[in-house]
Amino acid sequence: MTYLPKDKIVYFATSNIHKYTEACQVLSECKIVTAMLKKIEAMEIQDDNLANIAKFSVIDATRKCHLPIIVEDAGLFIEALNGFPGPYSSYVYRTIGNDGILKLIKNIIERKACFKSVVAFHSPERVEPMCFRSEVEGKIVREKRGSQGFGFDPIFEPLNSSKTFAEMPFEEKNRHSHRGFALCKFAKWFTSNR
Amino acid sequence: MTYLPKDKIVYFATSNIHKYTEACQVLSECKIVTAMLKKIEAMEIQDDNLANIAKFSVIDATRKCHLPIIVEDAGLFIEALNGFPGPYSSYVYRTIGNDGILKLIKNIIERKACFKSVVAFHSPERVEPMCFRSEVEGKIVREKRGSQGFGFDPIFEPLNSSKTFAEMPFEEKNRHSHRGFALCKFAKWFTSNR
Repeated sequence: MTYLPKDKIVYFATSNIHKYTEACQVLSECKIVTAMLKKIEAMEIQDDNLANIAKFSVIDATRKCHLPIIVEDAGLFIEALNGFPGPYSSYVYRTIGNDGILKLIKNIIERKACFKSVVAFHSPERVEPMCFRSEVEGKIVREKRGSQGFGFDPIFEPLNSSKTFAEMPFEEKNRHSHRGFALCKFAKWFTSNR
Repeated sequence: MTYLPKDKIVYFATSNIHKYTEACQVLSECKIVTAMLKKIEAMEIQDDNLANIAKFSVIDATRKCHLPIIVEDAGLFIEALNGFPGPYSSYVYRTIGNDGILKLIKNIIERKACFKSVVAFHSPERVEPMCFRSEVEGKIVREKRGSQGFGFDPIFEPLNSSKTFAEMPFEEKNRHSHRGFALCKFAKWFTSNR
């Protein structure tokens, strides 16, 4: 019987099981074991900058739990809507959803958008959190397509793909997605710095 | 020459000159002098509850400035949009604006909405901030009307009025508005507790 090396465990503070599943798949390829740390009374700040939100959250979580923790914050930024819904994507999804976004850009030809992700890592022995950013360009399609993933996945098609994120199984989405790339950057840094 | 009694000054932490003007008018009627404290690196949390946002901000501001401070947080809650834009009204206004809201409920008959306001007061000698809440019911009109006020004022018409907030001079708006009522509650409490 072998024991899990303690320095290969990372705690992912999230309430989103889809995000957790995506993270497990990416991080396990680098032999990092990811434990889900359900967010309890987690505090998020209002800020137009995803990295500030993620950093604040990961510092708060590490202070409360004394563990090596990652937090991921993502947003969909639509050019024709001045970056809306941006850092408030989760709230906007819960209220007006994909149908609301499609209404807002119904007659708009220019449908450029990008998905941004920031993974912030912090641990009790660190002075400051580390941030790993990634973004993926694409467009908002005319109608929802696909049933996988979550959030705005059914309306976002990355560049050089004919599928929306919701039409991709999660392993495939991870190879194309903002979150997959940011997690990969983190995993490389984490394995070479531990 | 008379000096201003120090205990009649309140500092309003805001970057919004319209809010400040409205507050001055309401508070001056109770002989409270309101100074504008321009928000610098003020922190706001993400929370679906306005009072939590206002409390967090006023505690943060009082800790930094050591003054008696009020913070006001408001939001427009549209029933047919599950409360959107709610606590994120300011961000939503800056990105999709009034036109975005009108698009979202273009063919929706049920146009009930309410404006909520929370005024939070805190000072260095207090243990906890005090909150004063108010809300005003009304509806989203079909087209923008009026050029006064700010934010979503041109599309909100309070119950028992044929004018939108943007069609009212600010003294009149204060007599009908969520912010006016919440400031009034604060003013009454403040003058009787000092």
